Amino acid sequence: MQSKAVYLKSRPAGKPVAANFELVDVEVGEPGEGQILVENIYMSVDPYMRGRMREAWGPGDSLMGGAIGRVISSGASGIKEGDFVSHGMGWRQHVVVDAATAGVVDPALAPLSSYLGVMGMPGLTAYGGLLVTGEYKDGESVFVSAASGAVGSVVGQIARIKGSREVIGSAGSDAKVAMLTEEFGFSHGFNYKTSDPLEELRKGAPKGIDIYFENVGGPQLEAALTHMRPYGRIPICGMIAHYNDGDSMTPGPRNLTETIYKFVTLRGFVVSAFAEHEGQFRQDMGGWIRSGDLKYHETISEGIENAPTAFMGLFEGANEGKMLVRLAADPTL
Amino acid sequence: MQSKAVYLKSRPAGKPVAANFELVDVEVGEPGEGQILVENIYMSVDPYMRGRMREAWGPGDSLMGGAIGRVISSGASGIKEGDFVSHGMGWRQHVVVDAATAGVVDPALAPLSSYLGVMGMPGLTAYGGLLVTGEYKDGESVFVSAASGAVGSVVGQIARIKGSREVIGSAGSDAKVAMLTEEFGFSHGFNYKTSDPLEELRKGAPKGIDIYFENVGGPQLEAALTHMRPYGRIPICGMIAHYNDGDSMTPGPRNLTETIYKFVTLRGFVVSAFAEHEGQFRQDMGGWIRSGDLKYHETISEGIENAPTAFMGLFEGANEGKMLVRLAADPTL
Repeated sequence: MQSKAVYLKSRPAGKPVAANFELVDVEVGEPGEGQILVENIYMSVDPYMRGRMREAWGPGDSLMGGAIGRVISSGASGIKEGDFVSHGMGWRQHVVVDAATAGVVDPALAPLSSYLGVMGMPGLTAYGGLLVTGEYKDGESVFVSAASGAVGSVVGQIARIKGSREVIGSAGSDAKVAMLTEEFGFSHGFNYKTSDPLEELRKGAPKGIDIYFENVGGPQLEAALTHMRPYGRIPICGMIAHYNDGDSMTPGPRNLTETIYKFVTLRGFVVSAFAEHEGQFRQDMGGWIRSGDLKYHETISEGIENAPTAFMGLFEGANEGKMLVRLAADPTL
Repeated sequence: MQSKAVYLKSRPAGKPVAANFELVDVEVGEPGEGQILVENIYMSVDPYMRGRMREAWGPGDSLMGGAIGRVISSGASGIKEGDFVSHGMGWRQHVVVDAATAGVVDPALAPLSSYLGVMGMPGLTAYGGLLVTGEYKDGESVFVSAASGAVGSVVGQIARIKGSREVIGSAGSDAKVAMLTEEFGFSHGFNYKTSDPLEELRKGAPKGIDIYFENVGGPQLEAALTHMRPYGRIPICGMIAHYNDGDSMTPGPRNLTETIYKFVTLRGFVVSAFAEHEGQFRQDMGGWIRSGDLKYHETISEGIENAPTAFMGLFEGANEGKMLVRLAADPTL
């Protein structure tokens, strides 16, 4: 069948521009043994894709990324026509996917689009990072940086839902901080650009924090180490503050000795660590979404021809919450 | 009775100097109910005491630390005159100790002085830090800094005894490095002052290290993070390099992001975490000492008046192995 896909025409120099992309007509074949033909409904655009355009993806390459679609025909056992699947072949309308790389998703549990956000990798990252790597116990005090983001906002809400005594979040603007406390139910929020992290932690959790969900590095990590309670845990999810360091690396925390007498653990992780927890995660998260306990934002562009614009918008702050493109009508809406 | 003790005269600014200490005459009373009067034979000087001089101990305070002594008279059931005990009231010749805070030690099992070293807290620190906090599994590759010291030398030897594929140690002089490989049986040693830690780790363990037993911080911690294998562990035992930093703290590792995709754990600990392992530890360690598998050094100063000099020597590398002061003749020698 005839379909459309977005290819990289040239590598961006600095911020991506429209001329870096090309909408092309492609011929999509029939699924072979163990394959499925999928009509994509939603695709995700994410900042990490900019990095891939530096080396992995060159001129003339098709782009890829997370997507949710409907199975049109199936050559795989266990997946049938009409199923909805999550897979890694976005930036195109139709695609043949190896069934082994796709997962069936249930629109009865949560909206289809949420499987690219809170019900997908960012959600599982938050869930596993807090509950598995962070070994969260009911009632403990939690601090999360980059708290208005796709991962951080879920971390804080899960802690709140699970009875956290104090949930502190930091973000980079007063508007985002207001969202933390007013919408996501954090007990305390602060703007890390205009306030002292240690002071804010003392204000938000006078007796110290048990878990710091680490997203950014820098002064907030130092403050967290200082204000950590005995046997505290620091799941290290990523250090956005350091991503652009290049050769001159940002100094690390000067107070790692804080870990010693407090028996504090720092532990790095990525979402692949939580594969075995995915079933429970989907059950829990679906329930919290349906009950309204857990909230999230999406910014949705319409049509594959607008995918490059949506991607470029990431670097202009055009999105509020997860940035998505709708490639076909969502039959579950 | 009349006795002598060392008091803190003033708080050190940076490295401790002689003028910070004072030898004073003290009156020591009789032991009451549940107490014992002890003549100290050996006392320990340790880097952690420098930290206590910042807040816990002020001018005019008596100092404290691990000691082994002989019971002169006892008001406690279970401990009798002539017993040897380990306790926490060093820096003085005679002292009345609550029996509950003292433990009887057996000079037939190992030399008295070793109970302040390989059979005591440093030994248990090494044993628990490697096997419990570090979760060492037979055959894994281990790197330990400050490897010629009281803790480090035991870490490396336990790893070697337990079949470690590669045991790498670093020390601050070529003589100490030679001792690591020639006497303690490390597979590779390097002088951290004259060589590049990362290069040396690559040389000593081409496929990476599973455990870095962290004693010093600084560039060796960075090198270890870079050369860590997936699921590696970094028990953080102490950071001698930072003890004298004062207000200008040493920058921490700039590459904590290395933990993320390698699922690396850093975990602080002190010896009190291993109380329940002490029985097994004494059995294992006693056996290794008697079989000659495990070797240790002691640097012993004579006389309480030399205790401050011995302590200051810790920060100048004056000790080879455990730094002790002999306060009275050892009747078991």
